[in-house]
Amino acid sequence: MGLIVQKFGGSSVADVDKMKLVAGRVIAECDRGNQVVVVVSAMGKTTDNLLSLIAQVTDRPNPREVDMVLATGEQISIAILALVLQTMGRKAISMTGPQVGIITDPFHRKARIRDINTARLREKLDEGHIVIVAGFQGLTQSGQITTLGRGGSDTTDVALAAALHADRCDIYTDVDGVYTTDPRIVPDARKLATITFDEMLELASLGAKVLHNRSVELARNHNVPLQVLSTFSQNPGTLVVKEYTNMEDIVVSGVAYNRDEYKITILGVPDQPGMAAKLFSKIGEANVNIDIIVQNISHRGLSDISFTVGKEDFQNARDVAEQFVKEYGAEGIRTDDAVGKVSIVGVGMRSHGGIAATMFGALAKENINIQMISTSEIKISVVIARADVDRAVQAIHREFELQSEPKLTAR
Amino acid sequence: MGLIVQKFGGSSVADVDKMKLVAGRVIAECDRGNQVVVVVSAMGKTTDNLLSLIAQVTDRPNPREVDMVLATGEQISIAILALVLQTMGRKAISMTGPQVGIITDPFHRKARIRDINTARLREKLDEGHIVIVAGFQGLTQSGQITTLGRGGSDTTDVALAAALHADRCDIYTDVDGVYTTDPRIVPDARKLATITFDEMLELASLGAKVLHNRSVELARNHNVPLQVLSTFSQNPGTLVVKEYTNMEDIVVSGVAYNRDEYKITILGVPDQPGMAAKLFSKIGEANVNIDIIVQNISHRGLSDISFTVGKEDFQNARDVAEQFVKEYGAEGIRTDDAVGKVSIVGVGMRSHGGIAATMFGALAKENINIQMISTSEIKISVVIARADVDRAVQAIHREFELQSEPKLTAR
Repeated sequence: MGLIVQKFGGSSVADVDKMKLVAGRVIAECDRGNQVVVVVSAMGKTTDNLLSLIAQVTDRPNPREVDMVLATGEQISIAILALVLQTMGRKAISMTGPQVGIITDPFHRKARIRDINTARLREKLDEGHIVIVAGFQGLTQSGQITTLGRGGSDTTDVALAAALHADRCDIYTDVDGVYTTDPRIVPDARKLATITFDEMLELASLGAKVLHNRSVELARNHNVPLQVLSTFSQNPGTLVVKEYTNMEDIVVSGVAYNRDEYKITILGVPDQPGMAAKLFSKIGEANVNIDIIVQNISHRGLSDISFTVGKEDFQNARDVAEQFVKEYGAEGIRTDDAVGKVSIVGVGMRSHGGIAATMFGALAKENINIQMISTSEIKISVVIARADVDRAVQAIHREFELQSEPKLTAR
Repeated sequence: MGLIVQKFGGSSVADVDKMKLVAGRVIAECDRGNQVVVVVSAMGKTTDNLLSLIAQVTDRPNPREVDMVLATGEQISIAILALVLQTMGRKAISMTGPQVGIITDPFHRKARIRDINTARLREKLDEGHIVIVAGFQGLTQSGQITTLGRGGSDTTDVALAAALHADRCDIYTDVDGVYTTDPRIVPDARKLATITFDEMLELASLGAKVLHNRSVELARNHNVPLQVLSTFSQNPGTLVVKEYTNMEDIVVSGVAYNRDEYKITILGVPDQPGMAAKLFSKIGEANVNIDIIVQNISHRGLSDISFTVGKEDFQNARDVAEQFVKEYGAEGIRTDDAVGKVSIVGVGMRSHGGIAATMFGALAKENINIQMISTSEIKISVVIARADVDRAVQAIHREFELQSEPKLTAR
């Protein structure tokens, strides 16, 4: 008998009819002889509606009280799902985060899980219950209700799977897995049967919307076998694993993109030690999240520093950059509010040369100009004109033949 | 510095604008130098909406899961009221029933409070907070969320006032106090400045909708000074006290009525010991709530037993009665689905004769026929035709001159 932890997002439990589909998924897992813990999000738009109610009072609400309100969303959905399972003849019981004993730090609206007491959960499982746990919420040592912030239900799911040493952790969503790229751009994008944690992390941070980084990191750190699959189809999903088991590496697993990048270049920065540190500490103080940074030393003893930010941070970042130019005697700034980023990800890059050349060649054939390049051990990103993003994704996907099953290459 | 516990019902916190009125009431009490604990119900129709959601799943829901769902209503309203008070510059904090430490028995949907741990509440009060507590909910010893059933928020209010030894317990509602009778029937009905717990209990059980019996009983048992007043007017309310302080008793305090009575008479019951016990234990098994019972011994060695029930129990009670007739050889049954009940209440009856005669005389003058009579130490009820109820209330109210301040009579 195995133990499976399943998570269903808000769109999967949006109404009672959808809950019945979810219950079917849960029951199928039970009928395979497994104990099942189910983590659910709030129903449909509940969380948004609760935030609107709060917004009627104030636009700067006390985060403790926001958590008090938001935690009700999951509390409703767990009980309704328990009732649905009970009407289908199953022994089911709902538990809030506090009831389970999900202990978090005291940072409201972005709390992190410190500890999970699995005793009560185990007790209910051993009594033969399907246990339905409220995602996204926990309790501080002093008894305050907290929420875990973005991706919180996924985090609950993985953390429970880790604490219970579950055999598998399933994340049900409205897509049926992880694709080589966005099928809306490349219709023959292929669903990956497996992907590694490291690749999944890069894809998530590069703009793939499937899984939140926090939960992938947590799964990697505790080696929890993670599966992404759809509530609404019977297709097999994508398994996220520590490493590919066939002893061979996929060279490139997928192509990710982000259309909403904004580029700022500071021209003619005096080439002295510490200038970049000064710039980026100022930017950090302004709470701006930087994406890619590229610095080139120019031959005149001056350097250009370019970086990209998201739309929400563009104005702020530009103000900081202008201030920096005045203060340190740089030559000026140049901005571009119409760039995007395209990236390839693959653990095989570590051991294979020529990947960057292939990628850049694909772009050259399409006459797409590369403005910035940034690489890590398992990814290569380029910043290009926003208008070129779709064509770039298509060209790169084609060049690496990602629509076909990978040609495995021995190390 | 005093300590006041205030309770606001669902209609008082139906939306953010109404919450601001409530906040004004709370702040006024603080500004009189008092510590304030506020108990709130769920916002407006929240509880009904949650019950409808449950009804979409099943009409026989597991009560534990129902409580899980219902408790969210108050959890939202406490946090929203805390935010409203904070935006008005006050230190306020919300606490759920479980967070306060309101411990109940394990009977879901009708739990009774066993104990209240006031330590956390005191701590927050002493830090200068207005503490806003979720009404209607608690936690069992084993960590299950319970709700207190009908009148639950009033019960929370009074129980907190008792546990904290509060100086006063205020129940804000949409009427501004307790009246000598329903002002919709008698336009010059008078608001009572004070009423005793015993009278209030009788009035509540006789159909006055102001306070729930459980909370009045609790207040009486712990001698909590209770006040009923309106959220929406500045009028003084009605104070519910242990006894009248002027050492004189009001003979009749008020006239209560209930239009929805249904009468069943079992004719010719053999006059043997235990027949009534057999009848009413059968009725109890059918979960029928009996109101008034009258038994007359007839001269033929047979007796007639009449009783009244509410509309929801009429069919059930008739079935039981018919069964009883067959089983024990009574002569038959007679039913009347168009009766009502009018009652007078007053602690002064204990020491004053002739009250019943005055009441019956008022009805006789109006040509209203009395079908049943039932008396207790401080109340007299008559069952009459439903069509006569309004005229009876008016006649009795006039006869006892309840529209004027009482003529106090020395004992």
